[in-house]
Parts: sequence; C-alpha cells; structure tokens
Amino acid sequence: MIGIENIGVWFPESFESNFDLKARFEIDDYFINEKIGVQKVGRIKPEEQASDMCIGAFRNLESRCAVDSTEIDLLVVVTQNPDSNIPHVSALVHGKLGFSASCACFDISLGCSGFVYALSVVQSMMKENSFRRALLFTADPYSKIIDPDDKNTRLLFGDGAAVTLIGPNPVWETGKFSFGTLGHLSEALTCTNSILNMNGRGIFDFAARTMPKDLEKMLTSNNLTKEDIDVFVVHQGSKFIVDTLAKKMGIEPAKMPFKAQEYGNTISSSIPIILQEYLEEFSIGKIVICGFGVGLSYASTILKRIKK
Amino acid sequence: MIGIENIGVWFPESFESNFDLKARFEIDDYFINEKIGVQKVGRIKPEEQASDMCIGAFRNLESRCAVDSTEIDLLVVVTQNPDSNIPHVSALVHGKLGFSASCACFDISLGCSGFVYALSVVQSMMKENSFRRALLFTADPYSKIIDPDDKNTRLLFGDGAAVTLIGPNPVWETGKFSFGTLGHLSEALTCTNSILNMNGRGIFDFAARTMPKDLEKMLTSNNLTKEDIDVFVVHQGSKFIVDTLAKKMGIEPAKMPFKAQEYGNTISSSIPIILQEYLEEFSIGKIVICGFGVGLSYASTILKRIKK
Repeated sequence: MIGIENIGVWFPESFESNFDLKARFEIDDYFINEKIGVQKVGRIKPEEQASDMCIGAFRNLESRCAVDSTEIDLLVVVTQNPDSNIPHVSALVHGKLGFSASCACFDISLGCSGFVYALSVVQSMMKENSFRRALLFTADPYSKIIDPDDKNTRLLFGDGAAVTLIGPNPVWETGKFSFGTLGHLSEALTCTNSILNMNGRGIFDFAARTMPKDLEKMLTSNNLTKEDIDVFVVHQGSKFIVDTLAKKMGIEPAKMPFKAQEYGNTISSSIPIILQEYLEEFSIGKIVICGFGVGLSYASTILKRIKK
Repeated sequence: MIGIENIGVWFPESFESNFDLKARFEIDDYFINEKIGVQKVGRIKPEEQASDMCIGAFRNLESRCAVDSTEIDLLVVVTQNPDSNIPHVSALVHGKLGFSASCACFDISLGCSGFVYALSVVQSMMKENSFRRALLFTADPYSKIIDPDDKNTRLLFGDGAAVTLIGPNPVWETGKFSFGTLGHLSEALTCTNSILNMNGRGIFDFAARTMPKDLEKMLTSNNLTKEDIDVFVVHQGSKFIVDTLAKKMGIEPAKMPFKAQEYGNTISSSIPIILQEYLEEFSIGKIVICGFGVGLSYASTILKRIKK
C-alpha cells in the first residue's frame, strides 16, 4: 500500500492586500469577503522562480518529518510557469537538493487539476516500477503572468507551493479516480505573450455544470455516497465557486470549506495546502479531493485515512 | 497485457540541407556525413505549432489503422516547446480532435528521454485506472528556439513528431525500465530568452559515460544480456554519439543504427520514428530503447515482440 505520508507547504514573504485595491478596482468589502473570498495574495520576489518555491516547500516538509533523499525514486513538479521550458523544473530541484542519479524526474503541465492528476501519475509509476518513495511538487507562480490592471486575475491568484511525500506508510490512500477534459473550451484560460487571460464566467459555468456530476460519478465508482464523506477539499477557485458547488450538491458549507482567504487561488497547490491541515485531524476519515481549471481539465478521487 | 499497438509519424513540408550551409559554418562532407550524420533537417512553418505536429502524426496513424476515439482514455503530449504554457498542448489536441470528455489529458515536460519516460507513465496510468487505450504524442519544435548562427544546434535538430497508440493488442510490450537524472549537470542544455544553448561536449561526455552502464543495468534487471537484443534504438543525438555508444558497448553498428540522416535529431520523437519502421519486421524480437538529454535525464527499457 502506498499513499500520502506528509505534506510541506511554502508561501512568499510578501503579500498584497486586496483591501488596498478597493478604489483602483471599484470593489467593496462584500466583493472581497463573500464573492472572491480572497483578502490577500502571496507575491514572490522578481528573482524567485518555481524551483525556489519547490525548495521552500521541501524545507517545510523536512521540518515536519525526516526525508531520506536516497529513498526518493521519483520527483515530479506540476507547473505551467517553469523557471524556463528547458530544462524542466524537476531537474533543477533534483540538482539543488543533490538527489541521487537513480531518481526519475519530470514535470507535468497542468493547472488547477494538476495535483489530483499527478497523484495518480506518481502512485501508478511507483507501483509499476517498485519505487520506494516519491515527492510531488506543485508550484505555479501566476504572479509572473498577471496583468496588474486585470481585476479578474490580480485579486484572485496567489503564489504558494506544496510538496507531497508519497510512500509505503501513508496517512491516506486514494480510491478510484475520475478524470476529464473539455479541450474545446480551453480558450477560457490562456497565456499569450506572458499575460494570463481568464474568462471567469466561462470557468465558473464549466465548474458549476461539470463538477457536481463528476463528483457523484467518482463517489459511485468508489461505492460511496456524499454522506460517507467528512470533508470535500475542492479547488479554491474562489469562494463563490466553492459555495456554489456545495449548494448544488446539497452539502453543508462546513463540509466543503473555502480556506484561501489569506493566500488566494494557488492553482495546483490549493488542495495540498489544505490537506496539510488535516493530516493529524484523526476524526476526519474520508476526504474528497477535486481539481478543475486550465484545459479545461478536471479530476477527483477520495482519500481514506489509514493512520489513526 | 498492454503495449505499443501502432505508431504515426509526421514531418514538415520543408527541409533545410546542411550541404547548403557548408561555407557558412566552415564544415565539410565528412563532418556532415560521419560526425553529425545529419544531411537535412525538417523546419515547420512560422504559423505551425506543437499541436499541429501532433495532429499531423495522428492523421498518419489513422492512415495505418482504425482509431476509435471513444476508446482513448488518456492523451499525453511530451514537449518542451508547447504552443503556449497555458493551456497544455494535450488539451488543444483533445479539442482539435473532438475527443470525449472522459479522456484524461496532460503534458510531460522532458526532452530526448521523454518518449521512454512517458511510455512508463502512460502504461502505469492505464493499468492503475483500467484505461482502454492511450495516445502518446511527442512533438518538440526546436526550430522555434534555434539561433540560426549556432552551428552546434542548427545543423543537428530537426522538427518531427510521432504518436504512439498504446492498448491491449500490442505489437510490443515493455520490460522493466531504468530511469536517471543528473540535475547538477542541467546547465549543459538550456533555453534562455527563447534561445537554445547546448554544451555539445558536455552532453556527449554524459551520454558516453552514463548510458553504457545504465543499459547493462537495465538488461540485467530484465534477465537479458546484450546478445539477446536484436536492435538497440538509442536516441539519435548525432551519428558520433550513436557510434560511440555502440563501440563502448561492443555492439556491431548495424545493431545500433543511426537512421536520422534525412531528418536530424527530433528530440523525444527520435525513438518512435524509428520504431515505426520495425513494427512489421517480424524477425526482430527484442529491441532496446534508450533516451538521454535535457535535464540531464535518461531512461531505457526493452520491447518484446508479442505480435508475430
């Protein structure tokens, strides 16, 4: 059996407050607190890159548990804002951490669905190749591609990173996954000439229409119903989309929380950042995780607590 | 059992002859024919992108076998020169081909080791998630990042793409894989400000030193020796590196051929382009495949013929 053993997270030193931007974007406290739900967002320094964010998350992981680097047979980075396209970020992280030559490394290009997809990729690779342990990094510094005049993106996306340690002594193991792609809608979230363009309404409509049905399908494939689930950790796109999903699925808001008030939408890191909080909440047995975004792409699975 | 069922390949309409560049780069026929071994290289049109190359390879695949798009549960693109970083190329290809919503899509960022890595990723994902069939695209248009004044890269890298159909009725199944990374050497191949920089000597030394040992290790893990292998399909970095590997391993050149004379180093497509030729060569039972490059990264495995 393999699964999630531990999680490290990282945030930048500097944050930008959305309250300071009220006049500039003609928004009020209600919009900040209830609509997007994001009060402030992390902003990396100009010289910081995705690989630095990964190293930061790894240092946090090391502060939580011993990591024997000689046991890490696989190192994956999920990002769409790499230091550069050549080489991949995972090779840079491998070099900076001085890992062994026998460690397999590659990057996965996915956005907000990336953690869930990569969890399946990593675990599948581990089982098939008898790998001992793996590190799954998520680090997507959107601040590098945000147009400072774009209210839709500047107020929402924050920099943050996570690293998930996967191995044979897990806190959680996963159930069956569900994956999906609506490639014909990919224009809703693009980056052209290093500027992010988001059709917020398009993404919202996609998520509100697609995810409730997909989550029901995934639960059925695991012989579960939504009543069996203690917490739904869905991608923190905005408070409005999380609240809408809870309402459409008839789930009480406390069971599908929005928790990104103080760091915003961290793309593929949004789910592991929250999962870190639950690692030692032993009363929580079953968690649904669900990502959706760029692609448009979506994925979900359940986490079942092993360590009690 | 799953494995490689078929392969489609694609080349651009336009090629550039290295013989036309002899004066400019002060090179002779010996350098072209024996050292790099590359006589001409494919060059995509300015408006063509990685996703177009994938579609071209898919059309070639369709000309070779029936592809039921409703059975494709996974679509992976290996590239480090995507149309854009957001969205991933696999979502664009998914949209252009009109595939079903339940198809999982993601890109893998790797260079010349990418096909071998991705073959393991795809097959592992398929087994773990009970996927029926998958398409593994490789498309890395280096012509977009080549400095026309750089002899080291312009004469070597050509545009080309491939798509590998993986499913339950294979021509070949894979053996055990070997993977490796030397992240501390990643500076030997980088792209900065959209310009590729290659330390050719660094890459050569890495490959000549690392790959013979790694191939021996991989063969041993599969309970095979090099005498059991009919053909070694190694990454077509240059004729010189392929010849050097054959010599160092004591393998006759005909068993480790250089075949990229007419299209050059096509990065992650170099191996599947050659494998297409062998699909129906029934006398060839066991093939070693071996990729190495950007990262620095390497991977190898064997293909065992199932369909006789």
